[in-house]
Amino acid sequence: MKLQTAKGVRDFGPELKIIREELVTALKDVFEQYGFSPIETPILERYDVLSSKYAGGAEILKETFKLKDQGKRDLALRYDLTVPMCRFVGMNPSIKIPFKRYQIGRVFRDGPIKLGRYREFLQCDVDIVGCKDMTADAEIINLTLDVFKRLRLDVEIKINNRKILDSILRCAGVSNDKLETVILTIDKLEKFGKDVVKKELEEKKILDKIVKNIFEFILIKGTVSEKLERLSELLVDEEGKQGIKEIKELFDLIEDKNIIFDTSLARGLSYYTGTVFEVFLKKDEIKSAIAAGGRYDKLISSFLNTKQEYPAVGISFGLDVITDTLKEKQAKKTVTQLYVIPINTFKESLKIAQCFRDAGIKTEIDLMSRGPSKNLQYANSKLIPFVAIIGEEEIKQNKIKLKDMKSGKEKLTTVDVAIADLKK
Amino acid sequence: MKLQTAKGVRDFGPELKIIREELVTALKDVFEQYGFSPIETPILERYDVLSSKYAGGAEILKETFKLKDQGKRDLALRYDLTVPMCRFVGMNPSIKIPFKRYQIGRVFRDGPIKLGRYREFLQCDVDIVGCKDMTADAEIINLTLDVFKRLRLDVEIKINNRKILDSILRCAGVSNDKLETVILTIDKLEKFGKDVVKKELEEKKILDKIVKNIFEFILIKGTVSEKLERLSELLVDEEGKQGIKEIKELFDLIEDKNIIFDTSLARGLSYYTGTVFEVFLKKDEIKSAIAAGGRYDKLISSFLNTKQEYPAVGISFGLDVITDTLKEKQAKKTVTQLYVIPINTFKESLKIAQCFRDAGIKTEIDLMSRGPSKNLQYANSKLIPFVAIIGEEEIKQNKIKLKDMKSGKEKLTTVDVAIADLKK
Repeated sequence: MKLQTAKGVRDFGPELKIIREELVTALKDVFEQYGFSPIETPILERYDVLSSKYAGGAEILKETFKLKDQGKRDLALRYDLTVPMCRFVGMNPSIKIPFKRYQIGRVFRDGPIKLGRYREFLQCDVDIVGCKDMTADAEIINLTLDVFKRLRLDVEIKINNRKILDSILRCAGVSNDKLETVILTIDKLEKFGKDVVKKELEEKKILDKIVKNIFEFILIKGTVSEKLERLSELLVDEEGKQGIKEIKELFDLIEDKNIIFDTSLARGLSYYTGTVFEVFLKKDEIKSAIAAGGRYDKLISSFLNTKQEYPAVGISFGLDVITDTLKEKQAKKTVTQLYVIPINTFKESLKIAQCFRDAGIKTEIDLMSRGPSKNLQYANSKLIPFVAIIGEEEIKQNKIKLKDMKSGKEKLTTVDVAIADLKK
Repeated sequence: MKLQTAKGVRDFGPELKIIREELVTALKDVFEQYGFSPIETPILERYDVLSSKYAGGAEILKETFKLKDQGKRDLALRYDLTVPMCRFVGMNPSIKIPFKRYQIGRVFRDGPIKLGRYREFLQCDVDIVGCKDMTADAEIINLTLDVFKRLRLDVEIKINNRKILDSILRCAGVSNDKLETVILTIDKLEKFGKDVVKKELEEKKILDKIVKNIFEFILIKGTVSEKLERLSELLVDEEGKQGIKEIKELFDLIEDKNIIFDTSLARGLSYYTGTVFEVFLKKDEIKSAIAAGGRYDKLISSFLNTKQEYPAVGISFGLDVITDTLKEKQAKKTVTQLYVIPINTFKESLKIAQCFRDAGIKTEIDLMSRGPSKNLQYANSKLIPFVAIIGEEEIKQNKIKLKDMKSGKEKLTTVDVAIADLKK
């Protein structure tokens, strides 16, 4: 046996897992503040569900882990949380609309391993199903702003509308059959710059004149209302007009200086039908979006093959890249806040430890009967902020010796005072 | 495509998932109060790790989901959290001892589907690695008592020691080669009763006289010290004496009327070497244990094929059965505490909703521009406890109409007063 993990997966020891848990707790907290409820779906799904026509598509199926159960049924590990949500909606016809749910869970892709890409990773989705109004899009954006405020990460959100982008491209002269491929290329603008996009469009046999038009249209400048005014002149089709109306309504409901109307924003996925958005760190140590989403009004109905409409809008948070960002700011090796060192007083010290625990202080006690210096070494190596040393003399006096590991200061004090100190 | 889940797995809609999340949060909270830190290991493991000699064993391997990655490597879905923890310990030789970790995660078994058995389920393990003293066993027991106190479930913990049971059986006349199979049968005593166990022992060709001895020894009565005294007379071998010493030390550290020293407790798994324990609900609606564990001092070293000693003790909580128990007591369809119904005041109401959210109240606002009666119906169907109705008149007066959905009472009040009311 080789003592190693599978390729492309990772262990999270306490250091990273504590940060990851704090992140997940903060996210859940904000989601629930907005009245989103959690759901959980299995990791194992039937292969025919994950591979059906309007599910993830051919590219993603190539990266899907397949397996069989005892009964030779074809199963697969889910590759996202969107398809399982569509299945859940279809199997629960009595759910109340709007269906506001969040889900955090692991997904699997058997793809090439590059920096920052894993075969098993945590996905975090928040969606509103059943509401076609821009109120829902605004709620997702406001929630996103609150999430990053909570995490103390400085972000900006770029917003566009697929109807506007489609209309821009058509008005620029792109034929309908090339819309999708051109959007895929434009999606690379933020990451690779204008020249790369220009070259790729030429390779895709888009005429120079049209490329020039595209750049003129998608790079228009000004305030939101100036851009919308310019677009009103440029876009003559119904779709374009509807897109402009939606962006107007949306920006009327969200007021924040970190929101940018960016007519060049594309988003790769083909299922978006309206609002699209991406969240970027302002300090651009990371050039990729750390969260992204949009409106997909047709996907669920197509997947369920039903005439009933299921308009939907949602966002997905990139937990791995956000964890990496937060890990720079924090350093923790344990959850423990207080380490109790008994010196021949284990039973009495255990009772004192229990008082701290009951008061909500995360408290560890030496279980190994080690000497004080070994114990201090241990507490130090785990970055535990406080230590309580309890010998027979302390027990007699009904006190403890509390040591602040950072300053090195010690004081003889009561349990109550120590609890108050630690809660500060 | 058939719109259905794989066999033996489940969706958790909001109703169940909310209870499950509250349960997990309560458990984590207690674990961290005792200074246990979380770790996370992948669901995908190398098949050779999961199938190695001292891993889960042949029976469990039959129920292991196998799959391959693109590179044709043999992988499997983990069937427990113990083997991955052993691997983690082996791959991280610099971890500090004692290593106190908890892990909550899904595990997979491709077994027969019976009531309450699933192919994908949540496991929750808490272990201390590296401490051979009874202080560690006492910590696990105390933590377990605190968990169920927090969950307000009335439980009792039965405790035994494998060294005592082994010694009892040997002193009763069981030969060494039959020890393991006799223990498997005795494990059925609590669930199926004395007659079933007796019959099975006869089928296993244990002599009548020995069976009589076994029952006399394992069913001794009295207080802990009376039982220990009786055992001191009966058990003459070194192992028995050591077991008696351990139980004495352990009971000296745990004081609780809900802890029972039960010399008949066996625990099926063969890897236990000392303390074993099982937790039962006092109201015996469920006869099986809802949590169980013990000391396994040899497992990790054997698995890692090393001479270094890794004594360990831990417990596993049955989250599915505990969820089922809690679900009787609670009924929630959403996390939402307050539902805001704007009447032609969406923008102003949105700001008010935000005030509630900032104050920590889980607040939903109507996104669909529905009328008041439809909105009240929605809030009612989701069991949301409070509703705020905000029309133009309320906005003018800087107030809201707060309705308690349970009593039906309405009052015109300020946001601040409403926040205080809801926080009660």
